[in-house]
Amino acid sequence: MLLKKNIPIKYVFGKIKVEVLLVLLYALLVEVMYINIHFTRISIPIAVPTMLGTILSLLLAFRSNQAYDRWWEARTLWGAIVNDSRTLARQILNFVDTPYNSVEALYFKEMFVKRQIAWCYSLGQSLRGLNPVQEVESLLHSGQLDYLEEFTNKPVALLELHGEDLHRAYKAGWINKHQQIELDRTLTRLTNSMGGCERIKNTVFPATYSLYTHLALILFISLLPFGVIDVFGMMMVPLVVAIASSFLLIEKMAIHLQDPFENKPTDTPVTTIAQTIDRDLKQMLREYQEPKILSPKPQTAAKFYIL
Amino acid sequence: MLLKKNIPIKYVFGKIKVEVLLVLLYALLVEVMYINIHFTRISIPIAVPTMLGTILSLLLAFRSNQAYDRWWEARTLWGAIVNDSRTLARQILNFVDTPYNSVEALYFKEMFVKRQIAWCYSLGQSLRGLNPVQEVESLLHSGQLDYLEEFTNKPVALLELHGEDLHRAYKAGWINKHQQIELDRTLTRLTNSMGGCERIKNTVFPATYSLYTHLALILFISLLPFGVIDVFGMMMVPLVVAIASSFLLIEKMAIHLQDPFENKPTDTPVTTIAQTIDRDLKQMLREYQEPKILSPKPQTAAKFYIL
Amino acid sequence: MLLKKNIPIKYVFGKIKVEVLLVLLYALLVEVMYINIHFTRISIPIAVPTMLGTILSLLLAFRSNQAYDRWWEARTLWGAIVNDSRTLARQILNFVDTPYNSVEALYFKEMFVKRQIAWCYSLGQSLRGLNPVQEVESLLHSGQLDYLEEFTNKPVALLELHGEDLHRAYKAGWINKHQQIELDRTLTRLTNSMGGCERIKNTVFPATYSLYTHLALILFISLLPFGVIDVFGMMMVPLVVAIASSFLLIEKMAIHLQDPFENKPTDTPVTTIAQTIDRDLKQMLREYQEPKILSPKPQTAAKFYIL
Amino acid sequence: MLLKKNIPIKYVFGKIKVEVLLVLLYALLVEVMYINIHFTRISIPIAVPTMLGTILSLLLAFRSNQAYDRWWEARTLWGAIVNDSRTLARQILNFVDTPYNSVEALYFKEMFVKRQIAWCYSLGQSLRGLNPVQEVESLLHSGQLDYLEEFTNKPVALLELHGEDLHRAYKAGWINKHQQIELDRTLTRLTNSMGGCERIKNTVFPATYSLYTHLALILFISLLPFGVIDVFGMMMVPLVVAIASSFLLIEKMAIHLQDPFENKPTDTPVTTIAQTIDRDLKQMLREYQEPKILSPKPQTAAKFYIL
Amino acid sequence: MLLKKNIPIKYVFGKIKVEVLLVLLYALLVEVMYINIHFTRISIPIAVPTMLGTILSLLLAFRSNQAYDRWWEARTLWGAIVNDSRTLARQILNFVDTPYNSVEALYFKEMFVKRQIAWCYSLGQSLRGLNPVQEVESLLHSGQLDYLEEFTNKPVALLELHGEDLHRAYKAGWINKHQQIELDRTLTRLTNSMGGCERIKNTVFPATYSLYTHLALILFISLLPFGVIDVFGMMMVPLVVAIASSFLLIEKMAIHLQDPFENKPTDTPVTTIAQTIDRDLKQMLREYQEPKILSPKPQTAAKFYIL
Repeated sequence: MLLKKNIPIKYVFGKIKVEVLLVLLYALLVEVMYINIHFTRISIPIAVPTMLGTILSLLLAFRSNQAYDRWWEARTLWGAIVNDSRTLARQILNFVDTPYNSVEALYFKEMFVKRQIAWCYSLGQSLRGLNPVQEVESLLHSGQLDYLEEFTNKPVALLELHGEDLHRAYKAGWINKHQQIELDRTLTRLTNSMGGCERIKNTVFPATYSLYTHLALILFISLLPFGVIDVFGMMMVPLVVAIASSFLLIEKMAIHLQDPFENKPTDTPVTTIAQTIDRDLKQMLREYQEPKILSPKPQTAAKFYIL
Repeated sequence: MLLKKNIPIKYVFGKIKVEVLLVLLYALLVEVMYINIHFTRISIPIAVPTMLGTILSLLLAFRSNQAYDRWWEARTLWGAIVNDSRTLARQILNFVDTPYNSVEALYFKEMFVKRQIAWCYSLGQSLRGLNPVQEVESLLHSGQLDYLEEFTNKPVALLELHGEDLHRAYKAGWINKHQQIELDRTLTRLTNSMGGCERIKNTVFPATYSLYTHLALILFISLLPFGVIDVFGMMMVPLVVAIASSFLLIEKMAIHLQDPFENKPTDTPVTTIAQTIDRDLKQMLREYQEPKILSPKPQTAAKFYIL
Repeated sequence: MLLKKNIPIKYVFGKIKVEVLLVLLYALLVEVMYINIHFTRISIPIAVPTMLGTILSLLLAFRSNQAYDRWWEARTLWGAIVNDSRTLARQILNFVDTPYNSVEALYFKEMFVKRQIAWCYSLGQSLRGLNPVQEVESLLHSGQLDYLEEFTNKPVALLELHGEDLHRAYKAGWINKHQQIELDRTLTRLTNSMGGCERIKNTVFPATYSLYTHLALILFISLLPFGVIDVFGMMMVPLVVAIASSFLLIEKMAIHLQDPFENKPTDTPVTTIAQTIDRDLKQMLREYQEPKILSPKPQTAAKFYIL
Repeated sequence: MLLKKNIPIKYVFGKIKVEVLLVLLYALLVEVMYINIHFTRISIPIAVPTMLGTILSLLLAFRSNQAYDRWWEARTLWGAIVNDSRTLARQILNFVDTPYNSVEALYFKEMFVKRQIAWCYSLGQSLRGLNPVQEVESLLHSGQLDYLEEFTNKPVALLELHGEDLHRAYKAGWINKHQQIELDRTLTRLTNSMGGCERIKNTVFPATYSLYTHLALILFISLLPFGVIDVFGMMMVPLVVAIASSFLLIEKMAIHLQDPFENKPTDTPVTTIAQTIDRDLKQMLREYQEPKILSPKPQTAAKFYIL
Repeated sequence: MLLKKNIPIKYVFGKIKVEVLLVLLYALLVEVMYINIHFTRISIPIAVPTMLGTILSLLLAFRSNQAYDRWWEARTLWGAIVNDSRTLARQILNFVDTPYNSVEALYFKEMFVKRQIAWCYSLGQSLRGLNPVQEVESLLHSGQLDYLEEFTNKPVALLELHGEDLHRAYKAGWINKHQQIELDRTLTRLTNSMGGCERIKNTVFPATYSLYTHLALILFISLLPFGVIDVFGMMMVPLVVAIASSFLLIEKMAIHLQDPFENKPTDTPVTTIAQTIDRDLKQMLREYQEPKILSPKPQTAAKFYIL
């Protein structure tokens, strides 16, 4: 009752079912040895697993903390991308100005804002290792697509195109020199958010910590049955499985959180966020006519409930 | 005596009364079994619940920390909204300048500042999933309300209107190009605060952590009576209830803090903050004549004492 | 010897003397019951208070951390006020420029810098719930004081006066448009610092955490004598008092640190800081002739040694 | 299975093989004494190593945290260098403008962007204590190399050359005064990142903490065999080695992480990052023709998998 | 072998030799009482010091954390001073421009950059409570020294002189209005760093925490011998001394780290940093001819190895 209703517990445990099964078999084996073969000397004082459990908790707390920070930073960077995309659209729409509000300038604004939408989709795809130009073909014209061909990093190329267009607009007198600088700063912030995502994507969490925590966890689970068998008897098996599941769950969660751009359901919801940007920016262009819904994005909430 | 006087302890415990009742019944049942049926073999060494209690404390510390951070970040973002609303009003009032201080410009300033007040109310409502245009109708004229119709995200639309008005003022020569840029930066900061609030609202706290902590807590409470019954006898029941209540309370508090825009009494006080902005900005317009109270907002303090 | 010499230990313990006395009486009562009435069955294993003590330590660590962070943030905000006051003075003195260095402009500079000093005093008073215009009357002329009358939040009004004066100076040609913008940014930073302080002042630390910690502490202290009486005998009383005092002290400290603007000796030293700003800014105006002391502020150090 | 497949466990344990061997010999010695010489009185209660283990865990958690923060800050600073290098290139390419798009200006752009690439390589080398001009000779012309001769800190000199070129470009009318300022700000951010790296490089982690943790670890490992020998008998040796290895591993990892510019495989991958910048910036110059690979940098991932 | 070779362990232990000696005497006294007078009833269960040890570890972790943060912030602020000094020099050298590159302007640049070097030395001296004008006399001319006389806070006065010179340069047409603003921002950042250092210097770490930790440590050390004497017999004395030394060391380290401007060897190395700035800035002026050393500052590393 403490959790959002629609979280499938089955989903959560599905991730660790192999491990839990192994723990179950192991505990049963110990139980059988203890009872049937009267191999009771294997019992150990509970202080040993207690010590290991405390140490392990500290390690998992450290690890969860760092994993959570990476995940939250990734989410914050995409939040900044939302903010700066809106800012960029607002600036383009209100800064660019031509004597007779020419069709050319209107087209320029639309193309610029749509390229920003394309940049968001492209960055999301690129971070997940998918084709970064697949979803954006309707938002860019063919010249721009050709230009992208020569770049390894497509989002960098799109920001470079932004920069070139600002230069063109400044030369044509559509924006003044202060506005060029200010728009360029928004590009700089977008560059920083992109770089931040790439940093999280490309920097592996220190492997020794992962390895060490995992080894300590195996050691703890291996000793746990011997520590509680004297006291709990037959109840030892479910107790061991319950405690081991807890630790395995939290370790698995840290592993998922620490890499938020891996095309898993626990990812930062980059596509959903890009769709929100898409909708807001198209509405600023007076183009997209979503019916007037007041409740804030119900369908969105449903999509990334896992996180 | 350590707490502000007017906090209703009843309120605090009201939130966990069902859980506490269940714990009470469970502890009584164990007690009855232990004494009446002489089922004394169920006692277990206290080291087992001690280990679980320590681990649980670490988990709750991690969770409280993250929940507190989300709540404090939400509060900080609304603090930034207060700051930038004041800054925007100060800039509008002192930057906009017309040759003969025309009525039109005075009207422009008033309309702009009131739209900023409307933005604050609207954002607060929108974050809580309420009608975002309900409270702002007196602050906007009908043309602006029509404009809002076409947008899903009303606060985004209001900032876009700000941007358009700045463009208009710049074209009319009421502000110079540097002032347009500087005002636009204030809009950018408001965009960032808005996006930050939406991020906190839309990002669910990792569900597995919640689930795991909850399961560990149930396991701990289930084992606790067996661990202390030997020692405490009849006193076991109140002791178990007291310890369990503490853990349940802190878990519940984390759950409330982690989602600060859910229309609960523990929310970030968005309406109260918007009213403070309302008062300050109207006084800057020389419009609102509150009697001269020197003590800092007594009625405010009363409203959000829970947090 | 580890502390600054002049900290009165008596002062520190004075804050918790009632609680310590109650603990002493309670421990004596338990002792008397144990020895005289031979009610020895009340002894409990030490593992129970150990578990509670560990849990409590984690909670107090969390709470101390958050309280410390609030206190340090308050101090940092006032540090920023020092910095931006100096910056504002430097900018006013070096940006404002008139053809013949007119008396009017010199007066303008002096009035502006003094109003900044007034703002610092006024903000400090206002945060502590004291009369915010009491100490500043010598720094403002009567027109400004009248203007303040109409505002609930006096520091907001003073920043608005700063903004109006910058507008006036810009119109008169004393500062150019870039300088107006740059000075306005300094005002924006001051607005942010002010808002940050108000946020800390107006946001109560989550009451449930305070309540929970306090209840857990009472439970721990209640059980402690029974846990150690078997082992320590007569020495139980001083031991219990010593341990309980430690926990009570740290809880009390957190309570004091978490609200740094409550007119207590443990506050952020807003008046002392405002006096430092006063001195530095008046020396920049070449007005205040303090004798040349090289050692850095000895009298200041004496004043807020508690923190 | 929880770790990236290609992490060589052998590599990880290779770092602590001497220590593990010593622990093994020590544990065997204790075992032999215990069994053969029946020197059983040396057994101690397990509570002693438990206490030390808990304390040690807290210390290692603190230390790991600080070491991780240093390492992550170093990585973040290099992420900022990526961002600002791209920003600088985008600005140079789109701000610099000459009436007839002269060859001289094209050369200027190329030289400037290549010097930025050189700066990245040079900073990386310099942080690792290697020759900072070795890899950059193809990117700079001889006049610039002569200029560097007179500077101790080569990256500072390269930024100074950037500044001089901006001055030259401004004098020639290729950039306007706003663009000069904006480019200079990018140089300022690069200066800050460089200074941040030097700060991490030059500031030794407080040696007393390192020493203390190490001594506590030795004490813990020395006592551990005596605490578990009674219970585990022959199994004591592998248990002690396993627990000791865990602690030694995590200590070693903290030591490696805290100094991320020491020319080790666990370093911040400064050369790889500089190569990425090299590729992106050359593609912006339309110079470098890497075949169109869509998957994000596979060869990079392979190189710094250790971290 | 885990530490830099040249750290004198003697130095580290020298700081706590009095305390260690007292602990040694105390432990010996308890030993003598226990063995000779057969006063064996004084032994207490090891659980009591274990509980205290765990609590104490949490407190020391909190305290070490805050102390480390202060120390690291101080170091970061001086890192920012390095960065902004380099930035200021780069800006002065490349922004100031006169028609015929007049001697006067060259002198202006040199004087400005040298005053910045003087500011760094002066701030360092001032933070340590030493004479802030002693080391800077060769860098300033007599008029500036007279000007400093009237200020209590010398670094504030030097920044004010910077501001005045920028005004003079702007009036003379040597820098344009944008450059004046940009240079002024660099001064603002220097003001902020200076204010941050003063904040750390002037804000005492909450004394109650220090006191509480110290009392808890004394209590722990007092009880420790009684807890382990039964088990360890004669070995109790070295064990108690070893454990007590660890705790004392870490407490002492926190005390040193938390006040990083007290003229101790563990200080933030303000003089060394100022010398680095001195060297870099003089090389930018082409004045200082250090032989071309490529290895990064060996002599520097030697100086502040303690931290």
